[in-house]
Amino acid sequence: MTDQVRIIEVGPRDGLQNERIPIPVDAKLRFVSKLLNAGIHEIEVTSFVSPKWVPQLGDAQILWPQLPPGGLYSALIPNIKGLERALEVGVERIALFTAASESFTQKNINMSIAQSLETFGEVIAQFRAAKPQGWVRGYVSTAFECPYEGRISPERTCDVARRLIELGVDEVSIGDTIGVAAPDEVRALTKRLIDVLPVERLTYHFHDTYGCAIANVAEALELGVASFDSSAGGLGGCPYAPGATGNLATEDLVYFLRRSGVAISPDLVRLSQATLEILQILGRQPTAKAQVAQLAASETCPT
Amino acid sequence: MTDQVRIIEVGPRDGLQNERIPIPVDAKLRFVSKLLNAGIHEIEVTSFVSPKWVPQLGDAQILWPQLPPGGLYSALIPNIKGLERALEVGVERIALFTAASESFTQKNINMSIAQSLETFGEVIAQFRAAKPQGWVRGYVSTAFECPYEGRISPERTCDVARRLIELGVDEVSIGDTIGVAAPDEVRALTKRLIDVLPVERLTYHFHDTYGCAIANVAEALELGVASFDSSAGGLGGCPYAPGATGNLATEDLVYFLRRSGVAISPDLVRLSQATLEILQILGRQPTAKAQVAQLAASETCPT
Repeated sequence: MTDQVRIIEVGPRDGLQNERIPIPVDAKLRFVSKLLNAGIHEIEVTSFVSPKWVPQLGDAQILWPQLPPGGLYSALIPNIKGLERALEVGVERIALFTAASESFTQKNINMSIAQSLETFGEVIAQFRAAKPQGWVRGYVSTAFECPYEGRISPERTCDVARRLIELGVDEVSIGDTIGVAAPDEVRALTKRLIDVLPVERLTYHFHDTYGCAIANVAEALELGVASFDSSAGGLGGCPYAPGATGNLATEDLVYFLRRSGVAISPDLVRLSQATLEILQILGRQPTAKAQVAQLAASETCPT
Repeated sequence: MTDQVRIIEVGPRDGLQNERIPIPVDAKLRFVSKLLNAGIHEIEVTSFVSPKWVPQLGDAQILWPQLPPGGLYSALIPNIKGLERALEVGVERIALFTAASESFTQKNINMSIAQSLETFGEVIAQFRAAKPQGWVRGYVSTAFECPYEGRISPERTCDVARRLIELGVDEVSIGDTIGVAAPDEVRALTKRLIDVLPVERLTYHFHDTYGCAIANVAEALELGVASFDSSAGGLGGCPYAPGATGNLATEDLVYFLRRSGVAISPDLVRLSQATLEILQILGRQPTAKAQVAQLAASETCPT
């Protein structure tokens, strides 16, 4: 069976990056193994950003060589130095991070959008030279709204997406970083995006801050988008986005897709258990809707 | 301004009915006042079911005369005896409860669907005689799936809805009691329902168990449905439905509708605070997405 929709799991990277309680490497590896066993194969596992900025992911070079076989793993790369560290351990799929909002890019990665794209050009050239078969994703965050600038026009987001494609990325991931968009906005943006890039190169990265993420996925799916980022257990959020409580939960995405008749591999029972150890370390209860429901359903049976 | 979409708040009844910790009448009255102040006007406030079965709502006759002015209040009526108690305190809007699944109806209200409809006939006749201008709603629960029987065909749900209309109800509320439906199912059912009743008489009552509720609202809205039940803070669930963790949260519904450009009255800031006292009594933290986000946004500001 070929999955009709790609699910890119970002929990180990995006979900954990802002957590202050250190997660041991072994727990991260078990998390990744559980995701694989649940049928999740594309996983963004870490970031080669400086440990000074993101201490939680400072173990990237230790983690990477121990990853279990069978996954399509990727890592976030902030700059040439990060790329060099990633190449040392054999990373073959990289993700680069910019935004549609100048203020956000400045506050988040301390560059202008233009500077970030210039850096990407150098990173991509060096990466392609080392890994001709490698895969490059470009993130466009704050694609709908910025916590500092407010609404972002579809034109601005399309412009950044187009420039990323021109730089040679294999796909762009369009992020509703603060989780505020509603389906109408997704429709408007998607229609413009598929004018500037093939729909196969388009992934959406929704946050579920206000509860619209699945409705947004449904809308994008209807327009032909077949690739979505999500985070097991809804782990993660954005420290620069007030109230941005979490990524779209992989459990919710999997439930919605399967119930909608889309052929996909992941097993919801196993998936709903994949984050339990991490949540325990963080001292939290599961909160993702389909995860909570699945865990409850596994314990009780109607008579 | 006329609201383009009706929101029927069911938190005080559906949200509280299964809570074991007793909520004092005064706290319920403050909850209703806060809902009114937040711009929510249609509220199902209680049930005139026997206190033996639903102790939490055993104070219906005490509560009703003290309700603040300004609301369109309704109450659930299980039978003639309940109606008589309701009429004693001047109830003018009633709701009757049946289901599309025989097993569920039997386990939930200890009648067959046919028996429940027969009872409704008597209740409606007596109610209309006492309140010629009164309003009657008929619930059809387990409209998509039953925890005991599995999937329910649209035909079965339509059949019960049609019989309710024939009995003279003013509207039917179609409930996804265990919160499992996806938008495709909502589309299929809605298309059949609007063949047997005017869309103006159709309300959906979604649960958000697996995170699809807003996507389901979006789908129904696109087909012309303009009336939705929801529960502030996502209070409530269904004791007969394993994993049915809660109703669609009014906060999520209000956020989605306003962000989608629908003209509606409720104020999200006030609404997100309306359940805080109740949650405190129950010893719980807010969990509704838009509520959590709004409460966080009210405390922090970007810059």
